[in-house]
Amino acid sequence: MSSLDVFFNPKSVAVVGATPKPGKVGRVIFENFKNKFKGKLIAVNPKYKDVLGVPSYPTLKDIPEDVDLGVIVIPAPSVPKVVRDAAEKGVKGLIIISGGFSETGEAGRKLEEEIKKIIKEHNIRVIGPNCLGVYDAYSGVDTFFLPEERMRRPPKGAIAIISQSGAFAATLLDWAAPRGIGIGKAVSYGNKIDVDDIELMRYFEKDPTVKAILIYIEGLKKGQGLKFVEAAREVIKSKPILILKGGKTKRGVEAAASHTAALAGTYELYKAAFRQAGIIEASGFEDLFDMAKALTTQPPAQGNRVLVLTDAGGMGVMATDALENLGLEVPELSNKIKSQLRERLPPHCIIRNPVDLTGDATDDRYKIVLDATLSSDEIDIALVIAQMQVPTLSEKVINYICEATKYGKPIVVCMAGSEFTEEIAKKMEAINIPVYSSPERAAKAIWALYKYGMYKTRV
Amino acid sequence: MSSLDVFFNPKSVAVVGATPKPGKVGRVIFENFKNKFKGKLIAVNPKYKDVLGVPSYPTLKDIPEDVDLGVIVIPAPSVPKVVRDAAEKGVKGLIIISGGFSETGEAGRKLEEEIKKIIKEHNIRVIGPNCLGVYDAYSGVDTFFLPEERMRRPPKGAIAIISQSGAFAATLLDWAAPRGIGIGKAVSYGNKIDVDDIELMRYFEKDPTVKAILIYIEGLKKGQGLKFVEAAREVIKSKPILILKGGKTKRGVEAAASHTAALAGTYELYKAAFRQAGIIEASGFEDLFDMAKALTTQPPAQGNRVLVLTDAGGMGVMATDALENLGLEVPELSNKIKSQLRERLPPHCIIRNPVDLTGDATDDRYKIVLDATLSSDEIDIALVIAQMQVPTLSEKVINYICEATKYGKPIVVCMAGSEFTEEIAKKMEAINIPVYSSPERAAKAIWALYKYGMYKTRV
Repeated sequence: MSSLDVFFNPKSVAVVGATPKPGKVGRVIFENFKNKFKGKLIAVNPKYKDVLGVPSYPTLKDIPEDVDLGVIVIPAPSVPKVVRDAAEKGVKGLIIISGGFSETGEAGRKLEEEIKKIIKEHNIRVIGPNCLGVYDAYSGVDTFFLPEERMRRPPKGAIAIISQSGAFAATLLDWAAPRGIGIGKAVSYGNKIDVDDIELMRYFEKDPTVKAILIYIEGLKKGQGLKFVEAAREVIKSKPILILKGGKTKRGVEAAASHTAALAGTYELYKAAFRQAGIIEASGFEDLFDMAKALTTQPPAQGNRVLVLTDAGGMGVMATDALENLGLEVPELSNKIKSQLRERLPPHCIIRNPVDLTGDATDDRYKIVLDATLSSDEIDIALVIAQMQVPTLSEKVINYICEATKYGKPIVVCMAGSEFTEEIAKKMEAINIPVYSSPERAAKAIWALYKYGMYKTRV
Repeated sequence: MSSLDVFFNPKSVAVVGATPKPGKVGRVIFENFKNKFKGKLIAVNPKYKDVLGVPSYPTLKDIPEDVDLGVIVIPAPSVPKVVRDAAEKGVKGLIIISGGFSETGEAGRKLEEEIKKIIKEHNIRVIGPNCLGVYDAYSGVDTFFLPEERMRRPPKGAIAIISQSGAFAATLLDWAAPRGIGIGKAVSYGNKIDVDDIELMRYFEKDPTVKAILIYIEGLKKGQGLKFVEAAREVIKSKPILILKGGKTKRGVEAAASHTAALAGTYELYKAAFRQAGIIEASGFEDLFDMAKALTTQPPAQGNRVLVLTDAGGMGVMATDALENLGLEVPELSNKIKSQLRERLPPHCIIRNPVDLTGDATDDRYKIVLDATLSSDEIDIALVIAQMQVPTLSEKVINYICEATKYGKPIVVCMAGSEFTEEIAKKMEAINIPVYSSPERAAKAIWALYKYGMYKTRV
């Protein structure tokens, strides 16, 4: 049992500042819980006897039942009093959504100090303040105070998100939802007066529903660098960590400093630390999800030798460029494999690497090449381009690609097109074959599988 | 009048090899013309008296009417005979779809030489052989032999595509269609025994429907480099050229060489040539379209000083990083503008560059900042991030952003999210405001607007 369990799996939750008033943060959060939370829900607001039909109490202390988790959405100056009530009540965890703390100046910083003292004394865990808090697709905890019509919630899934920016966490969930990207957990920790990135990372390490941890970070607190690296090195033994760093350039660092209180620091130092920790760095948020898709569905690669298999020559060339630029190899095939392929493929197919099945490619040509190459020790990963505009290809190609996963090597697919293509892509992704719409994105996903394989071997 | 007009606007077209047999290339092409071509259509096939109800003749010479354009879809060895017939008939242009020429070896090369001799003698223009040929959304010329259910055709629009890879041209059209990206013309020229990239580029320069020229190229023919650069320098005076080069790495060049006959050559030389020519290089095909979207809707930028305006701090940081990494500036605002903004924005807004309107941003705050900055001479371009998860934002923000185009400076928008966001994005794009789903993509579009502005000034 971890002391963070209370944030993700509380038996009972009290929302301090719950209100029936439409549009208010205290209403959105309370409604989220009412609609989705499976445990006991209680309102705290002296103005009401009930909120949306749920009993409301003047203070936490007036609640007859036990309270595991308190969610606080009242103005900053009143928060320390509520934290004291929570201590008296025996509340185990608090998510303090309210802003107006250290991010606004000295008065706010003092309020934070006061809270810190109380929670330390009484052993209460806190996420926040100044945050969106916690989203858990499994238990129904959802303190993200943006209504569903503005911020859709994604399907359940193997990704956990830790974000220093609340708005960005909201963007990620909303963006992921229509794309069917599964997210199980997300935390926006705000000013992190207690629970921080490091502890969350370790928590998700033990969570069996999580297969990849995605982090957006602008800056660590002073002196936390080494601790962060050490924690990450442990975590990546069992699951990959992907990071997007905000504040890489001079002006970017300045922008980050004005936006969060944290010091963004020199990017070069962060970069070196990430590498040392075995953390995979993303260049943007689409890239973050692209790589996560591969890492949550495919095994890490045992080497960097990639087979490029294509039915469109140009796409094969682009994939080769992208792979080589990322430091991956597209090795020439041995004469042994080449002659095997020459025997079984039509003479106009181009048998080298990329293998070009050309514009009259059939499903079984894919099978022939995948079997001959992935069963050998010449190739570590396959990048399969299947341009479905080719009329001789059918849905059967899905089965052949899926069957080839039996060789235990990662397979990544690239296909770009309209509805016909997207239908096939959806079917592939449903059986855990990651599909990308461009050779460059597929190559980057392969890079992540290779990097993670290398990092894992190293630690 | 250009001699290439016959490929895009023929009065009459004869398809040599037209057939009613389902699934055959000669059927798909003939049907394309039958369904969409506005001029006179004729079939040539000795086996039939008519094809799909259209009269068929044994040879081109048997056709009683004039023939502007011949489309040839018969096996390579029979092609020279048809070209001779075309010469006799007075056909002005030929699109030779058939493969089996120089790309297959010596015998094919000889066939090509024979054809070259005839067309030179009789002044016939040829696209191909070994190509998909021509797609013209306006006239209905469409020799792309992939049926609509496999390769959708995009809406009419300001983009023209020239591609050395046929399959890739097909991918681009199919991919663009469901995304509503407007493409007016596309040419896959195959072995380019006559019409080449250079001539097509010059042709599209004069075409008033074309606002941007997109090129996929693996290699120029020997000795064509200088001519290519000179032509491009002329063209970019009136419209931007965007290029995607296949074959940038050692293995990529080798793959290109095995796939097209052309020599891919050293990428560094191409890169230098593109820069000298004022051609904007793309890193992948999504990037190609991203940049084209900005260049076909916004004026080129007169400088590199970018305003970043955001309602989500983290996204502002990422945009700043992306811009700086591309060599653009995100300059500090003058005290004059800052105090103007301080007077008119709430005190918790962060007034620097990026300007952060924060999570309770309203539509009119966007207007206030855009007016104060774009009317000044401190800023050349605006990158506007509007995360619509913020419940206080409405559709009105569209109008304010659109109004700000009156300052004559390019505006690029970034918003990421689900259906609500995408609806707003669609409305913006309908009034020619380019919208991108990530800060990095928006930054790249801005880079293209800046580059084109600089190139235009230089030539």
